Amino acid sequence: MRIALGLQYDGSAYSGWQSQVNQRTIQDELEKAITSFVGADSSRSNPIRVITAGRTDTGVHALGQVVHFDVDVERENWSWVRGVNSFLPESIVVNWAKPVSNEFSARYSAHERTYIYALHAGPCRSPMTASRAGYLMIPPEQWFDIAAMKKSAECLIGEHDFTSFRSSECQSKTPVKTMYSIDIYSDQPWLYFKIRGNAFLHHMVRNLVGSFLQVGSGKHPAAWMEEVLLAKDRSIAAPTFSPAGLYLAQIAYPQEFMIPKPSLANSWLHKGLF
Amino acid sequence: MRIALGLQYDGSAYSGWQSQVNQRTIQDELEKAITSFVGADSSRSNPIRVITAGRTDTGVHALGQVVHFDVDVERENWSWVRGVNSFLPESIVVNWAKPVSNEFSARYSAHERTYIYALHAGPCRSPMTASRAGYLMIPPEQWFDIAAMKKSAECLIGEHDFTSFRSSECQSKTPVKTMYSIDIYSDQPWLYFKIRGNAFLHHMVRNLVGSFLQVGSGKHPAAWMEEVLLAKDRSIAAPTFSPAGLYLAQIAYPQEFMIPKPSLANSWLHKGLF
Repeated sequence: MRIALGLQYDGSAYSGWQSQVNQRTIQDELEKAITSFVGADSSRSNPIRVITAGRTDTGVHALGQVVHFDVDVERENWSWVRGVNSFLPESIVVNWAKPVSNEFSARYSAHERTYIYALHAGPCRSPMTASRAGYLMIPPEQWFDIAAMKKSAECLIGEHDFTSFRSSECQSKTPVKTMYSIDIYSDQPWLYFKIRGNAFLHHMVRNLVGSFLQVGSGKHPAAWMEEVLLAKDRSIAAPTFSPAGLYLAQIAYPQEFMIPKPSLANSWLHKGLF
Repeated sequence: MRIALGLQYDGSAYSGWQSQVNQRTIQDELEKAITSFVGADSSRSNPIRVITAGRTDTGVHALGQVVHFDVDVERENWSWVRGVNSFLPESIVVNWAKPVSNEFSARYSAHERTYIYALHAGPCRSPMTASRAGYLMIPPEQWFDIAAMKKSAECLIGEHDFTSFRSSECQSKTPVKTMYSIDIYSDQPWLYFKIRGNAFLHHMVRNLVGSFLQVGSGKHPAAWMEEVLLAKDRSIAAPTFSPAGLYLAQIAYPQEFMIPKPSLANSWLHKGLF
């Protein structure tokens, strides 16, 4: 039987999603928790392995991560949620669980991913969102040119070669991805980016955010973004921005699988984003 | 010269405000940072000691803490802020600094304190506010009786003996305090309490929140709160609620001292509260 889970996590204390030797990862914690819950009344010795929709990096968070795994025991949906949560640390939570057909893959069935980047900007950092939002020091009374950032985002919508925003460690087969929408939401001292596409290259959202901020702070004009995109050269775009504000917000699947939407209201992010 | 500082901190990792042997406290971190900053070009060897407006407990946060200290060096206001912050961990930040007259005491000049309690309630906890909000597990579709909680708060306004909400470790000279206002703000899945009084007993806000939640969840009628208050018996009120959602939000001083208001917008809490 195949089970899909929706989960949220604070990635601050983890070396990202993927299992690595001698590192604390979210995949390891989740697999251990599922195995402990299932193992309570079974004799299997193999740990459960999960497949994820998106392998988030060190320090990156998730509001709507989706995984699936195969298992030979039956449980009520709510029992999966409560049971697995009882073995998880405070920084990871399962929000829903449901049986899915064997055609469903959390990774390969996904056709759309939404990331949110939350930035706090002002003269002093905020301990209340430390490690859960990016931070940029700007003088009092200063704010970003939101119109210029929005204008600069237009050239990115549609299918493009995003090589300029791709990390050298990226393992994607192709740098060509389709961007569906980029929303920039200003609520001083907060600035949010909501970025929706079919898939993303390694560090792509953080590289885009870094570049938007150079436009928003007047270092480059709005038209610079298209130059960067067309150059297909990583050295031209801005440096990779901090992982602290990055949230994997939602994964979309074909409607037939009836995958629930994540409960973004559980986060502290501004409701205008949901 | 006497300097006043406004500061914010995430208290999750600390054994409260006050210096204690073999404990990590916010007072220690701040005194160490000020001493390091001042010591950079002076020969003094005594550490700087600070006096605070409110000694917060283990795990309790502050958005508008105020302290003062006496020092024999002069710095620009902004230099105090930047300089001390450079020696502080991510979980503590100085937001403003200014010279004050020797009549000013962060503790004794304060005539009003405001606390905010942030609660998250729902079927699953949220990793995104873990240790920065209280949490209560309630079934999906269930919410609190806000009108009953507001009604129950009415009897607490004014001067009363708050013995029923006082911890046995409280060192206050008197259990009689004056409550100025209690605002209850519902924004599902968030519930906020904003409580303003001249001073508070040990654990008083957390004991009040626990009791409000028993009214809000229907365990007791609104009129129960007055019975608890009049009983002057700690064993009748609800258990002390978690420190995770408690914020020392603002300290008010006589206008002559011109103490700045804290920048609550730096936090993730709902703007309706500010």
